[in-house]
Amino acid sequence: MGFDIEGYLTRNKELVDGKLLELLPKAAGAKTRLQESMLYSIEAGGKRLRPVLAIAAGEAVGGGVELTLPVACAVEMVHTYSLIHDDLPAMDDDSLRRGLPTNHSVYGEAVAILAGDALLTEAFIVITEFGVKSGLTSSQAAAIVGDIARATGSRGMVGGQALDLALEGADTGVEEVEEMHIMKTAALIEAAVVSGGRAGGADEKQIESMRKYARALGLAFQIIDDVLDIEGGSEIGKERGADARKKKATYPAAAGLEGAKRRAAQLTDEAVECLRGFDERALPLREIACYLGGRKY
Amino acid sequence: MGFDIEGYLTRNKELVDGKLLELLPKAAGAKTRLQESMLYSIEAGGKRLRPVLAIAAGEAVGGGVELTLPVACAVEMVHTYSLIHDDLPAMDDDSLRRGLPTNHSVYGEAVAILAGDALLTEAFIVITEFGVKSGLTSSQAAAIVGDIARATGSRGMVGGQALDLALEGADTGVEEVEEMHIMKTAALIEAAVVSGGRAGGADEKQIESMRKYARALGLAFQIIDDVLDIEGGSEIGKERGADARKKKATYPAAAGLEGAKRRAAQLTDEAVECLRGFDERALPLREIACYLGGRKY
Repeated sequence: MGFDIEGYLTRNKELVDGKLLELLPKAAGAKTRLQESMLYSIEAGGKRLRPVLAIAAGEAVGGGVELTLPVACAVEMVHTYSLIHDDLPAMDDDSLRRGLPTNHSVYGEAVAILAGDALLTEAFIVITEFGVKSGLTSSQAAAIVGDIARATGSRGMVGGQALDLALEGADTGVEEVEEMHIMKTAALIEAAVVSGGRAGGADEKQIESMRKYARALGLAFQIIDDVLDIEGGSEIGKERGADARKKKATYPAAAGLEGAKRRAAQLTDEAVECLRGFDERALPLREIACYLGGRKY
Repeated sequence: MGFDIEGYLTRNKELVDGKLLELLPKAAGAKTRLQESMLYSIEAGGKRLRPVLAIAAGEAVGGGVELTLPVACAVEMVHTYSLIHDDLPAMDDDSLRRGLPTNHSVYGEAVAILAGDALLTEAFIVITEFGVKSGLTSSQAAAIVGDIARATGSRGMVGGQALDLALEGADTGVEEVEEMHIMKTAALIEAAVVSGGRAGGADEKQIESMRKYARALGLAFQIIDDVLDIEGGSEIGKERGADARKKKATYPAAAGLEGAKRRAAQLTDEAVECLRGFDERALPLREIACYLGGRKY
């Protein structure tokens, strides 16, 4: 019998969902509107792909979930903050996300901006407080804070979002689109895998292999997202063709639909290849790459 | 001869100014608009009160500036991010800050939101990367990340900003205004002092005294700001009476002008009293409290 990837994803998603709700600050007594708004977007979460990758990376080096779960939750908080800010009127101006009204559509722009700010900040509390209580060494916690912050600052995710906005409507080449996708999407996926691996006890050589795996996987993931935006597909939670209407720089626009599919398949193979030096405990990491690479399109 | 407080403030401000410019990411070759916008607000900085407090707190326990400067710069990045976001149209909608156009007035809302996000994130890179290179232990770095993140998240500064917006136009009592000021302003001042002290090697008992000092000082500081908004004064960099026009909850509105001045003086005395257990190396911390408490009004 093969590996039950869907069962693995579901089981770990539920673990993450439960822990996220436990970690989010609930003021004694009355919850504030800000905290409601943070919870709203966390509860509207999707497959929890990034945290599950963090858990799988820890498993690949024998690290138990008690060590990787805080990191996994922190990464999902950072991801959720980025979605809230990306959806704002001044950015992508989206009113729906995963089929639900976006945060600012429900709570207003001011609260949505602050909810994003607070979720980003909370991620670093989770790592240094809950993470250390759960068994991370201070040295691991400090390194993981650095991994996640570097991946999501001006040289990573936030820089990628700025580039994305700047490229709207421009005639963009393949290299520029790849650079933007690597910063905007792959960097956080890389941070999830690397920090999960680090929490699980990976050595520097293993971390470097995981980094390459995650970068290839993250880029493939975003290219496939671009393809799904054109061809539709099961449950992307937004209207088909939204990228084209917004004149977004996408991989298919730069390289054609077939070129995009070929590139995604090549990157998925590359990702799996990066795991050659790991033993059977890396099976979930391998299977996740194949599963994501094979998303229906 | 007395302590030259103005010389002390100027000397350390220049140290912080220089290091901030060194630390801010400059992409090889072309600087991006996002990075320009981050630099714009950092360079528009004022007295650098929070980082100077971090340095003074380190000095109070014999910690050299090489240990406290990374923490000091990180705190100033967090402060700058908070100003950029507070000024946004969806929040306080200010077009001027320290006599210059606000970030979003120059770079647009999208870039301003991202510049704030990136400065917050950069602060955690600075602590865990540059801080550790400069001699902080991983354990100090992880604890300082926690100090700053707790002070600035939903239970601290960001929660205070949400409360500030929620209280606009409401009939607000003294206790509610104090709670808001403690979260919105005093929490980051507390984080500056505590993390500077921690970087300098303070023990837990010293950190607790510093925490009380900073909380009293931070609240006094904000009450005096409220008073200055009514009575004007030297260089507050915004128009007199702005709080009243925006129907902001302020201490003078809740307790009267004389009540506000009395409370600020009492808190300043309290702050100085908290330093009783420290030796002469805490002189700068004491002098800063007196200096701020004595701001002309």
